[in-house]
Amino acid sequence: SINGERLWNSLMAMAAIGPGPNGGSCRLALTPEDSDGRLLLLDWCEALGLTTQVDGVGNLFIRREGRQPDLPPIATGSHLDTQPNGGRFDGVLGVLAGLEVFRTLSEHDITTTHPLMLVVWTNEEGSRFAPAMVASGTWAGAFDTEYTLTRTDRDGITFGQALEAIGFTGDTPVGEPHLSHFIELHIEQGPVLEAAGESIGIVTGVQGMRWFDVVFTGQSAHAGTTPMAARADALAAAARLIDRLHHYAVADETGTTRITFGTLDVPDSSRNVVPGQVRLSVDLRQTDDDALDALQQRFRTELEACGEAFGVQTHVERIWASPVTHFDPTCIAAIEQAARARHYRCRKMVSGAGHDAVYVSRRTPTAMIFVPCWKGLSHNEAEYASPEHCAQGAQVLCDALLSLDRC
Amino acid sequence: SINGERLWNSLMAMAAIGPGPNGGSCRLALTPEDSDGRLLLLDWCEALGLTTQVDGVGNLFIRREGRQPDLPPIATGSHLDTQPNGGRFDGVLGVLAGLEVFRTLSEHDITTTHPLMLVVWTNEEGSRFAPAMVASGTWAGAFDTEYTLTRTDRDGITFGQALEAIGFTGDTPVGEPHLSHFIELHIEQGPVLEAAGESIGIVTGVQGMRWFDVVFTGQSAHAGTTPMAARADALAAAARLIDRLHHYAVADETGTTRITFGTLDVPDSSRNVVPGQVRLSVDLRQTDDDALDALQQRFRTELEACGEAFGVQTHVERIWASPVTHFDPTCIAAIEQAARARHYRCRKMVSGAGHDAVYVSRRTPTAMIFVPCWKGLSHNEAEYASPEHCAQGAQVLCDALLSLDRC
Ligand SMILES: NC(=O)NCCC(=O)O
Ligand SMILES: NC(=O)NCCC(=O)O
Repeated sequence: SINGERLWNSLMAMAAIGPGPNGGSCRLALTPEDSDGRLLLLDWCEALGLTTQVDGVGNLFIRREGRQPDLPPIATGSHLDTQPNGGRFDGVLGVLAGLEVFRTLSEHDITTTHPLMLVVWTNEEGSRFAPAMVASGTWAGAFDTEYTLTRTDRDGITFGQALEAIGFTGDTPVGEPHLSHFIELHIEQGPVLEAAGESIGIVTGVQGMRWFDVVFTGQSAHAGTTPMAARADALAAAARLIDRLHHYAVADETGTTRITFGTLDVPDSSRNVVPGQVRLSVDLRQTDDDALDALQQRFRTELEACGEAFGVQTHVERIWASPVTHFDPTCIAAIEQAARARHYRCRKMVSGAGHDAVYVSRRTPTAMIFVPCWKGLSHNEAEYASPEHCAQGAQVLCDALLSLDRC
Repeated sequence: SINGERLWNSLMAMAAIGPGPNGGSCRLALTPEDSDGRLLLLDWCEALGLTTQVDGVGNLFIRREGRQPDLPPIATGSHLDTQPNGGRFDGVLGVLAGLEVFRTLSEHDITTTHPLMLVVWTNEEGSRFAPAMVASGTWAGAFDTEYTLTRTDRDGITFGQALEAIGFTGDTPVGEPHLSHFIELHIEQGPVLEAAGESIGIVTGVQGMRWFDVVFTGQSAHAGTTPMAARADALAAAARLIDRLHHYAVADETGTTRITFGTLDVPDSSRNVVPGQVRLSVDLRQTDDDALDALQQRFRTELEACGEAFGVQTHVERIWASPVTHFDPTCIAAIEQAARARHYRCRKMVSGAGHDAVYVSRRTPTAMIFVPCWKGLSHNEAEYASPEHCAQGAQVLCDALLSLDRC
């Protein structure tokens, strides 16, 4: 059995790196805090005698040797980066539960047939560098390394520059090593398991998502002298789009439409100036790719109408599209058997959030384990998963990895 | 007669300090650019043998001696600070036209009975430090000096710190010197004069204005996992408020309602996070104080409704209120006579923009002269007033000041 208390202590030690003002963590990708988090993990791994490879986009591959070193490793892992006001569990749980599995095996002198591998994927959140999951996507071949290294943050710093700055540009070619299976443990980040009183989600897939950058260009003008009818107010146009699409999503009776406007910037804004430009990010999600197409069409139609209504030009760029993902039946079965053998209450479910497992699953048989989190809150400093649920998740992870090793 | 070419050359020389990317100027209040603009003006004034006093909030009082030095000076002036993407004429024209009057008088060896005074008021725009016109307001007694020195910009720098940093904290007590009359020349910043083919506006007053800071507090949450119905989206609430009030203002058939949301910030925003907080600025204007009261009430009612509709808390602070201003009949008459004597096409009108003259008029008989600007555009780099109109405005200013001196 894994050691729940040790796992919890690791989680709290990691949370103290880049502490947020309200009890969460702030370790944006490839910042000094991200680096400190990685170094802490690597210290712990060194103490276990594990070896680490780093690839050209900063992914960490931590290897625990198996009896047959030539077999491809059975892998687990997640990410250590967080949102600006992020929680202590999103991503971190999956990494530290993997570490806890390795510690438990070492304690009991267990050597698996396959090598095992703990992977830390770079920039999963997509907050500093869009898109999300870009480094697991690069490993999986969904993005070119060059594309990934040239993503820029809001200050114009590239992914490659930031990676160099923290010293985590490795020499393992991107795409190596090959993995045999991948199981990722994560908090649910939604309300389903908690509401049902269940402790394990067997994740069968992930909904589709698309990201857009929209620019509204009107005309900056004086707030006091410019008649309402003579304005081309970029913010008024953006506000109407937000209101219309929010209304549309709320009205969807299936409850599957998700629309989020996470960032809105008015460059060089001033109180007494009618905004001449607005930059808006749009995040669309649906459980079904056809429904996502329809949602995208609706968004484009509304955008055009709002621009026209306010005499404002609109420019839209789709910067990311992740289709609906279906995980591997063998991995799903391994997780389900592990959960049932431990008599944990569980259900099969689809993830609303993207995860590194999405891209990994394009190359490698993959599935995920969810544990409940308080009120379904995530991307919020108040994010919380209980020590018991974290331990149960890590136990299922351990059992599932060992059962895949035995196949 | 004033020298229109010399005036234009001064305007273009000043515009080159803090040049904007699209042909305008960027000299935010109390920045190094603002300082450079002040120093250029002071160089020009020194060449004329003029003396300058600086008060405790950085206002410049540049004196041209009269035959009776004990009489209070007849004054003109405006401001040198600009919006972030500001134009080359807003404020600057009033200052440099005053300089041109002084130059013309010196050329013709004219000494007035009263001393004349050219005043440069600090931070008129209100863009870096709210409220607008705060330093003329402090001179006039509308604000305490302490209040003014403690206004902060977005980076938390105070007015007092910024003033010290550019070395313009003077030792003249705020409120001194006393002025006998004040005439301010300014571009109209609106479309009326140009549309009517007139070149001089005789400004009889200024509409009322109120500024508010609104904070929406919802709950940050995951964009992919949080059902629409479970969100407390601060940006969705703000967007609805903007849309509703914009609609309300446009629908006003009198055309006198002006509502502007100039700045909107989502702190620590991220693409895949439902915004937990939004900060919004609101600028309300009306030509009549009762109508402004009603507008404010409507704003508060809509704000409450939008907060409730989205489960978002709202907090509103009124940070500035400037009632409807009526200028002095003697000054108005002096301007009108000057314009008519030169056969310039003119009209009486009310200003939609606030000006330093608003606060000066609380202590001193005051009025304003407007000249047309291209398409009424202002607070925009494309702001433009023709050399002819600038010269005509400066001529009326000169004539009106001399006629007040003769009274
Ligand atoms: N797990 C997680 O929060 N991933 C970020 C990518 C997304 O927005 O779903
Ligand atoms: N003249 C001018 O643009 N003043 C700024 C104050 C206002 O917003 O009206």
